Amino acid sequence: MVVNNAEQLLLQAKQSNRVALAKLLSIVERGGQPARDLTRLVWGSADSTYVVGITGAPGAGKSTLTDQLISQVRKRLLEVAVVAIDPTSPFSGGAILGDRVRMQEHATDGGVFIRSMATRGHLGGLALAVPDAIRLLAAVQFPYVFIETVGVGQVEVEIVGAADTTAVVINPGWGDAVQANKAGLLEIADLFVINKADRDGSRDTRRDIELMLEMSSFEGWIPPIIETVATEGKGIEEVFEAIESHREYLEKSGIGKKRREARILEELNHVVQAEINRKVSQLLSEPSFAAKKAELISGDIDPYSLAMELLKFEDD
Amino acid sequence: MVVNNAEQLLLQAKQSNRVALAKLLSIVERGGQPARDLTRLVWGSADSTYVVGITGAPGAGKSTLTDQLISQVRKRLLEVAVVAIDPTSPFSGGAILGDRVRMQEHATDGGVFIRSMATRGHLGGLALAVPDAIRLLAAVQFPYVFIETVGVGQVEVEIVGAADTTAVVINPGWGDAVQANKAGLLEIADLFVINKADRDGSRDTRRDIELMLEMSSFEGWIPPIIETVATEGKGIEEVFEAIESHREYLEKSGIGKKRREARILEELNHVVQAEINRKVSQLLSEPSFAAKKAELISGDIDPYSLAMELLKFEDD
Repeated sequence: MVVNNAEQLLLQAKQSNRVALAKLLSIVERGGQPARDLTRLVWGSADSTYVVGITGAPGAGKSTLTDQLISQVRKRLLEVAVVAIDPTSPFSGGAILGDRVRMQEHATDGGVFIRSMATRGHLGGLALAVPDAIRLLAAVQFPYVFIETVGVGQVEVEIVGAADTTAVVINPGWGDAVQANKAGLLEIADLFVINKADRDGSRDTRRDIELMLEMSSFEGWIPPIIETVATEGKGIEEVFEAIESHREYLEKSGIGKKRREARILEELNHVVQAEINRKVSQLLSEPSFAAKKAELISGDIDPYSLAMELLKFEDD
Repeated sequence: MVVNNAEQLLLQAKQSNRVALAKLLSIVERGGQPARDLTRLVWGSADSTYVVGITGAPGAGKSTLTDQLISQVRKRLLEVAVVAIDPTSPFSGGAILGDRVRMQEHATDGGVFIRSMATRGHLGGLALAVPDAIRLLAAVQFPYVFIETVGVGQVEVEIVGAADTTAVVINPGWGDAVQANKAGLLEIADLFVINKADRDGSRDTRRDIELMLEMSSFEGWIPPIIETVATEGKGIEEVFEAIESHREYLEKSGIGKKRREARILEELNHVVQAEINRKVSQLLSEPSFAAKKAELISGDIDPYSLAMELLKFEDD
């Protein structure tokens, strides 16, 4: 007898059972058929969840900013879920440590749900797991989901950049804005937060960002630049207001709808790729592949020709 | 009349024509059908090239170390090519700047070829382009190819980790070894270089690495830890000797052959995925997909079911 099946867990999670929700998120994180079944189950739920991405270099103060934004949401008596994307190796206890430290502040608050998600060693995993997690949290009716990265790897940037509003956190100091640009953050920013703005160089950093924005071609929405001292709660209200302004802009312009549709198609793309990878792994482990493999390694056939053969595609 | 076709360029490149080689690498970097044709052309060339990966956090001194290792190769009267993996956004001039600064030292040396490769905004690109570039450089008969990362993104780590010998560069200082571990560098290291070893904390860093190595389960080859001051050329000889020792170990144990085979299969995997992605993009842009797309966005069909339908896979 299966007691904790996904359907039951989902029912419980919708009734604010956080243990059930945590179990569902573990299913999502582990991937495979159970995760696929779960996504099928929650797909098409009414989606009024607003997703905010928070990214920036390690040490920029993303966690502190996120914690402060949580308080902003809670002041409005709304619930919020935080997904921290942590691409640590399986050896590391980073994710768990991060959770523990941060849960202290919001531990007694049932309206806040924090969860770290790790890559578990393969790149494609997060690209699937995070959208699935967001969908699950939307099905459970969180009005806000914050996606926060630990670092600025490319996959994390892509995932966070797919949020409704993406905040890029930068610190004052020579070259920080340039680094953010190099990491591809300028392209995904809907707003910039200069955190630790009480430090030297805050004005220069603002000017750097403004210059880079001028050189780019933003249309309609120009990402605002907001100075904060997250540890003291300074500027947080402004950040939350900027998020709300951006939300309003997205809704009025119709761009929000287009973005969400693009996100769904991107999700389909990832799913398609994952399914194909599964199929290809199967193919490559079949006995009939052994001879082909020897040909490939000996150089008698090149990988492109073999790929075509395996996939039964015609060259074009 | 096509004058500079790939076959002609390859012939020229094999006669040490660096301009031709640079053009071929541009073909590789741009990808698409010309890159595929080029790989078919060079696939199966006698491959006696030894590939050394050099990775570590930004600022660890990888470029300086690489430059010093170039000199080691040149002392032995051998030629060497360097591929610097630079995941900068298209906006940035990082790659070009890096090349320019470094070419100064080896500019007059025809036996050294340095090239930066950028992701150009998509993740899959590098995973294909770098092995293709290595294969090309092998076809042109460079005895050594150094692959150097600018940062430690997951894709770069995967690519560099596929080298014959991978050197992980760490600096003295509290937590640096732990950070390297978190970035997944411990798993791919064949040797550790503590660069800037004249700074405080070098001994502690060595102890940290030793401890982490003890906790892992290395068999056969225990990665040596070598202290260097790359800016002064200290310890470089030892690094090069460690690379040669590792090479000898790989050859004698037969592990080198297995690694190369695994790398070829990994390459096939990437090619298969890229081919599929192309096919999927085609599929998704067909008019018949429009109706399905609307169903997906409205929530009437979930991405897993649609993926199965598109790919004509059966659920399993």
